[in-house]
Amino acid sequence: MAMVCLSDFEAYAKKYLPKIAWDYFAAGADDCTTRDENILAYKRIRFRPRMLRDVSVMDIRTKILGSEISFPVGIAPTGFHQLAWPDGEKSTARAARAMNTCYIASTYSTCTLEEISAAAPGGLRWFQLYIHRNRAASQQLVRRAEALGFRGLVLTADLPYTGKRRDDVRNGFRLPPHMKVKNLERAFEVCKMSPLDPSVTWNDIYWLRSLTRLPIIIKGILTREDAELAVRHGVQGIIVSNHGGRQLDEGPATIDALVEVVEAVRGRVEVYVDGGVRKGSDVLKALALGAKCVFIGRPALWGLAYKGEEGLQDVLRILQDEFRLSMALAGCASVSEIGPHLVQLSKL
Amino acid sequence: MAMVCLSDFEAYAKKYLPKIAWDYFAAGADDCTTRDENILAYKRIRFRPRMLRDVSVMDIRTKILGSEISFPVGIAPTGFHQLAWPDGEKSTARAARAMNTCYIASTYSTCTLEEISAAAPGGLRWFQLYIHRNRAASQQLVRRAEALGFRGLVLTADLPYTGKRRDDVRNGFRLPPHMKVKNLERAFEVCKMSPLDPSVTWNDIYWLRSLTRLPIIIKGILTREDAELAVRHGVQGIIVSNHGGRQLDEGPATIDALVEVVEAVRGRVEVYVDGGVRKGSDVLKALALGAKCVFIGRPALWGLAYKGEEGLQDVLRILQDEFRLSMALAGCASVSEIGPHLVQLSKL
Amino acid sequence: MAMVCLSDFEAYAKKYLPKIAWDYFAAGADDCTTRDENILAYKRIRFRPRMLRDVSVMDIRTKILGSEISFPVGIAPTGFHQLAWPDGEKSTARAARAMNTCYIASTYSTCTLEEISAAAPGGLRWFQLYIHRNRAASQQLVRRAEALGFRGLVLTADLPYTGKRRDDVRNGFRLPPHMKVKNLERAFEVCKMSPLDPSVTWNDIYWLRSLTRLPIIIKGILTREDAELAVRHGVQGIIVSNHGGRQLDEGPATIDALVEVVEAVRGRVEVYVDGGVRKGSDVLKALALGAKCVFIGRPALWGLAYKGEEGLQDVLRILQDEFRLSMALAGCASVSEIGPHLVQLSKL
Amino acid sequence: MAMVCLSDFEAYAKKYLPKIAWDYFAAGADDCTTRDENILAYKRIRFRPRMLRDVSVMDIRTKILGSEISFPVGIAPTGFHQLAWPDGEKSTARAARAMNTCYIASTYSTCTLEEISAAAPGGLRWFQLYIHRNRAASQQLVRRAEALGFRGLVLTADLPYTGKRRDDVRNGFRLPPHMKVKNLERAFEVCKMSPLDPSVTWNDIYWLRSLTRLPIIIKGILTREDAELAVRHGVQGIIVSNHGGRQLDEGPATIDALVEVVEAVRGRVEVYVDGGVRKGSDVLKALALGAKCVFIGRPALWGLAYKGEEGLQDVLRILQDEFRLSMALAGCASVSEIGPHLVQLSKL
Repeated sequence: MAMVCLSDFEAYAKKYLPKIAWDYFAAGADDCTTRDENILAYKRIRFRPRMLRDVSVMDIRTKILGSEISFPVGIAPTGFHQLAWPDGEKSTARAARAMNTCYIASTYSTCTLEEISAAAPGGLRWFQLYIHRNRAASQQLVRRAEALGFRGLVLTADLPYTGKRRDDVRNGFRLPPHMKVKNLERAFEVCKMSPLDPSVTWNDIYWLRSLTRLPIIIKGILTREDAELAVRHGVQGIIVSNHGGRQLDEGPATIDALVEVVEAVRGRVEVYVDGGVRKGSDVLKALALGAKCVFIGRPALWGLAYKGEEGLQDVLRILQDEFRLSMALAGCASVSEIGPHLVQLSKL
Repeated sequence: MAMVCLSDFEAYAKKYLPKIAWDYFAAGADDCTTRDENILAYKRIRFRPRMLRDVSVMDIRTKILGSEISFPVGIAPTGFHQLAWPDGEKSTARAARAMNTCYIASTYSTCTLEEISAAAPGGLRWFQLYIHRNRAASQQLVRRAEALGFRGLVLTADLPYTGKRRDDVRNGFRLPPHMKVKNLERAFEVCKMSPLDPSVTWNDIYWLRSLTRLPIIIKGILTREDAELAVRHGVQGIIVSNHGGRQLDEGPATIDALVEVVEAVRGRVEVYVDGGVRKGSDVLKALALGAKCVFIGRPALWGLAYKGEEGLQDVLRILQDEFRLSMALAGCASVSEIGPHLVQLSKL
Repeated sequence: MAMVCLSDFEAYAKKYLPKIAWDYFAAGADDCTTRDENILAYKRIRFRPRMLRDVSVMDIRTKILGSEISFPVGIAPTGFHQLAWPDGEKSTARAARAMNTCYIASTYSTCTLEEISAAAPGGLRWFQLYIHRNRAASQQLVRRAEALGFRGLVLTADLPYTGKRRDDVRNGFRLPPHMKVKNLERAFEVCKMSPLDPSVTWNDIYWLRSLTRLPIIIKGILTREDAELAVRHGVQGIIVSNHGGRQLDEGPATIDALVEVVEAVRGRVEVYVDGGVRKGSDVLKALALGAKCVFIGRPALWGLAYKGEEGLQDVLRILQDEFRLSMALAGCASVSEIGPHLVQLSKL
Repeated sequence: MAMVCLSDFEAYAKKYLPKIAWDYFAAGADDCTTRDENILAYKRIRFRPRMLRDVSVMDIRTKILGSEISFPVGIAPTGFHQLAWPDGEKSTARAARAMNTCYIASTYSTCTLEEISAAAPGGLRWFQLYIHRNRAASQQLVRRAEALGFRGLVLTADLPYTGKRRDDVRNGFRLPPHMKVKNLERAFEVCKMSPLDPSVTWNDIYWLRSLTRLPIIIKGILTREDAELAVRHGVQGIIVSNHGGRQLDEGPATIDALVEVVEAVRGRVEVYVDGGVRKGSDVLKALALGAKCVFIGRPALWGLAYKGEEGLQDVLRILQDEFRLSMALAGCASVSEIGPHLVQLSKL
């Protein structure tokens, strides 16, 4: 089976992963409308490609928060990578470093931050944080991440409670006994109930700021109002995200929300987007609409499921090649030439 | 079979109810366009969820016409509950009381108002009325309802004649011999022809008003013009409804009509809506667009068909949990925080 | 098999007619887009139904060019009724008279005008005319129709050449040897090539006017420009029609074109519409948008195919009942109360 | 099997061509969205047909760059005709001449320009050019084409690199050993890597101009900006094209882009369009929107696959008949009567 595009990896993962793991990764909230809309919304955007520009030398590198990456696609934070591949997040870290891009490690990793760091020393990594009822646990995580050389702190804002993913309820999803949310082992014992703190507000950004000198990126913003609040509370970046359609169903597709957020932010902080990226041309659309970089969630897991670190590199390489080709065919030789003139928000 | 969402109950009812009963409950008029549009129109509305608000303490209670209910979902009037469950409307009344919400008992109940009252003393109930050619029969019903402690009178305005439901015609639908429209037994004998009076006009509101001190709620309004007339004729509430798509096919979806009615009413009376509610997030959308409460019809019948009173409680509990979760994920901790800023009427 | 709605007759006809006849009646030009759009366009229109109006006494009669009909649905001109039922147009004429409505007999009838007249003396009938290369033949037809008491002359304007109906080409469609285009037998011999004259222009209306005192109705108008020309050339009525989607594919649906034509005509002549009417509520929509009456083509043929004259009466009776019910449920007790306020041209 | 419309030829080709050849011809880039949109976009355009115009004498001829053709449909440049029929481009040239229309021979022909010329002396032909890294090879081709009597030079602007056509990657598409890109045999040896030059810019139009006195037509323009640049750089014609959806996926459908290009060009040069033409009425739409002529790609290959030169003539004859009929049914007797009043860009 030739692996030509990302859906080939999806098909592979669906076929070979245990159903309960596939269902967990694939799950969207409720009717999965937003999960699917994330993809469909990209398809509604039309390019306005330009011809006869010199695209003989292509430069697809970019920088996020000052760090150069080989192309504007990073790895979004997703949990439980051991469900996809035995080495779990260690493989993810190695693949990201090999491809010279950014990996956002999840609080809900099945490897510790230390294991992840040791697996790929020197790689560009951010750490994704949920604020727990047990604030000491969160504080300890932030300090560990900073000490281990993570270069950004990504606060997830859209999960005061977990969304209703019907298949997970039906399957009675839980981690197999031999896997653990290793970063939180002790904290999990302390909190018998759901460990996340639904009372978190914008003021907790100040608390986070007091804990660390790392840049803070807020993930889960979908409106201009919240984008404005994020900037005012001093974050360094915003990830426009609906958690892959796993939280509130029937909110906006992320690529649609991106337009509104970019407009509100007016360049004051970097804006990224995740959700629905399946082709290199989706990356080009996101950048044309103002994103500095996109992050991929499920496609990274499909890559892991295919061949671990090597499979994830395959996924990234395909996206990279497709992105480069799309840029060239649209008439852009470097990322700096990408702009809103390249797209037309279609009426369909 | 895990009962995770309302469609699970629908599938159960479709499988286990006698075809003629399922068809009767499921029927829409003509091509069933409006029946299906009621659901689709909800899906076209997009949330604009807000992040990082304190949603640790959730309050989902509300009041309708001064009575508190545990959450803004009541039971819409539907006929012939014994077709779904042997105890019929008595089970419905018990489930509504157990869940602390409002049950609108139909004129076309298969239990008497007295039986319904006795089954769940103290429950919040309204009585749904059709005005009959035999006005004395209607008058007697109103008086009985008031005497039995029903707290509102719901006048159905959209059934001067019965809509054309093709399956019912094909099936030759009629009640099985052991069931009766008990509230009307005597009146039915008097009127050999269809007992409903197609000459009813707005002036009959005054006649109703003369019969009872109960608040009058008018059900079946779909336009701003009729909303204005309803307010001027002194009703206390309006239920935006198209009778579940069973009357005039190809009228508006109720959630679409709600916007227009709420605008016309300008807060002078309470506005409710029924039709198409299948998820807790639909309730949130209806409230965001100005409804004080929604009412569910077919889902209540599916609950009854599943396990009677217990099944209906399951349905209500699922809606309650989903509604609470949707509110939290949209950033609202209490019903009073819900407003039009939460939604975006999508173009699709 | 209960015949509950018009699609039941369609299914019957599809099952029992010879394929070549079914294909001929069902055919649309090219991709059949316009044929299908005629139906879909009705579904896109939403009612704005009004409540609590006295609809106890319903009056669904109307007048076309001064003649009263029992309800605003007539029989559109279609060819070759013997393909559907042995008695052909004689049955059609009898059914139309029995239902007290108007039948537009086609030039391409398989019975003569004399046979049609004799079959149902006194019925309201118009005669549909194609202008032939052999003008004498056309002139003779007009005179015969007038002499036989036909009360209107319907000039078809949209068939300078026959549209490309792929199935007819594949089937090599032609009339079986025992059927004849009886009205034209002699003229057909004269013209070996297609007998219709593609050089006809607006000036030929004056020629027609010189031949007869019958009112002239022009059929096949789809634009405001042509509507204006029709009025200026002195016609008495316009049938908005695209020949059932059998001529130019991908023109407008007739109910969409009706709006534009009605606007242009400003009440100076009567406007009718055919194409896509499948339910009584479609009739109500057409009238709300300004049509004085609608005409049905294929549904009449399905009725004939089912049981001849009796089957066609069934079809008309169903439409009549559905139309009356739709009117009542929309709050109109008589045709004069129908107006544009009843509908909303939906965006979908 | 009767060959009634172009899809009949498509079905034939799909059935009888080797899969690898069918896939190559059918391929679109990535998800094939643009390939399919080219067709769908035509369907969204509605005619506004006019009635009662004299269409007894039809004149469907037109001129492109001064040369008369029998109707406004030419053969777009596509590669590797021997994959469809043993005689390859020689058959294409003969069919085009027989039908008195223009054939744009591709650089990637499997016959030499000399063979093509010899096969159909005197036919109207243009030569399609890719500019190669080896400029001498391109220059030589231009000179050969001019010397052989080709009457226009079509510069393809949208292929700095080849689009990603997944099926070709899966199939490992390459020409069978007995076929050759004959025009480039020597040049191919010189360039081991992809021979096309991605550094081509607008200035290379001046270089081309210096090589030849042939009119230069630029192919692949999709925006008003590039249309303006094309005019300013002195081309004689523009082909609005997205390479049949084989290059950048999710750009505009060509018939949609045509509107924008025609508007920008304001009659200064001739504008043509290719992509998605499947019916004579599509040609009429393109002309109504300002195209001087359309070109067909895949349908020509289907014709070749069916019966070589004869099959391609069948395809052209069907399009010709359909175009003439559409014109007549829309009320136009000659190409000069076609204009924007004939169409309505629909909202769907």
